[in-house]
Amino acid sequence: MSPTERSTVRRGARRARPDREALHAVLDAGLVGHLGVVVDGAPRVLPTGYGRVGEVLYLHGSTGARSLREAAGAQVCFTVTLLDGVVYARSAFHHSVDYRCAVVHGAARVVEDDAERERALEALTEHLAPGSWSATRRPTGKELAATAVLALDLHEAAVKVRTGGPADDEADLASDEHDWAGVLPLVTAWGAPVPAPDLRPGAAVPDRVRRRPAPGGDPRG
Amino acid sequence: MSPTERSTVRRGARRARPDREALHAVLDAGLVGHLGVVVDGAPRVLPTGYGRVGEVLYLHGSTGARSLREAAGAQVCFTVTLLDGVVYARSAFHHSVDYRCAVVHGAARVVEDDAERERALEALTEHLAPGSWSATRRPTGKELAATAVLALDLHEAAVKVRTGGPADDEADLASDEHDWAGVLPLVTAWGAPVPAPDLRPGAAVPDRVRRRPAPGGDPRG
Repeated sequence: MSPTERSTVRRGARRARPDREALHAVLDAGLVGHLGVVVDGAPRVLPTGYGRVGEVLYLHGSTGARSLREAAGAQVCFTVTLLDGVVYARSAFHHSVDYRCAVVHGAARVVEDDAERERALEALTEHLAPGSWSATRRPTGKELAATAVLALDLHEAAVKVRTGGPADDEADLASDEHDWAGVLPLVTAWGAPVPAPDLRPGAAVPDRVRRRPAPGGDPRG
Repeated sequence: MSPTERSTVRRGARRARPDREALHAVLDAGLVGHLGVVVDGAPRVLPTGYGRVGEVLYLHGSTGARSLREAAGAQVCFTVTLLDGVVYARSAFHHSVDYRCAVVHGAARVVEDDAERERALEALTEHLAPGSWSATRRPTGKELAATAVLALDLHEAAVKVRTGGPADDEADLASDEHDWAGVLPLVTAWGAPVPAPDLRPGAAVPDRVRRRPAPGGDPRG
């Protein structure tokens, strides 16, 4: 995917997925990622939503948010992780998790062009709440002015996926120092929609909410 | 909780939880956090497990892992986020998420003392898989030598929690430019345990796995 040192998977390299489809799949399956920026020489990591348009990831936030201001034009790291299960091994050492993780490195570009800003906000809204861009009120000029939009190219990225059971040592397989080994899957689902208290009485839950596909995508990455 | 600039919540300050109990609750409810370190001046954000002992958070990893080596003695940021729901508003602008988030800042200390290292690994194992420390083989000297353990003091931290429905503008409440508003809760649960393929036939799933309490804790933070 990318030839740089920092986007080359070293630990657990057999779990690296070098293809762009795997990167897109993890990004599309996640809802929130963690944005890392450097502020006064120290790292800050904050959760944030995102949207993808082709090979560009869009982030947004208040123009008043420090971490977003610091990210503008600077090197950032954006990581999306999906946790798929806890791996119970015969030894404490080999306990692990099944997961999918995408890490994107690069310089965040401030999006200035109005058309690109609108496309980005549509992608962000649709990623969080598919169907909401056309079903709800679009941003006003004032709202747009209060919103910073950043673009992060997906060129430099890495994907790791772990699936399946424990990788135990030979000696532990025959031992009786353990009671069980396997995977306890972590499953995410949508609960029953909760209408806003001030919603007009009798408003039906639209299909875009009621029939929203289960979150998290395919754990096999 | 902490008086420093970087651990003072500015955006959405009404969602800040200043008490240590809220910090512990979020950390205890999460399974994986995101560790931010600075490498060659740029941020790196990687997911990792953790364990808490009182006011100390422990992280571990291979002694060969670059991000862990870079974290040793350096300023790090460790963030745990639980996503509790998608907030559908009457406007694209007010779409949001319900979440719980803990952000810890500080210098990561390499744990050298054998007894503290063992306590840390027990806490890490028990956080990931309660009951596994005593039910499985403990680490060997060789495994311990290959494991780096870092401690992060919980002194400098911030917690934010968002619950409830959308905060829409007055003008949008009466408008018909939207079909619905409310919260679609995100629910996490354990799936059915999957025994390791090489587990001895007939091994019962122990209670620590079968009856493990649902992940994610209480969304009200």
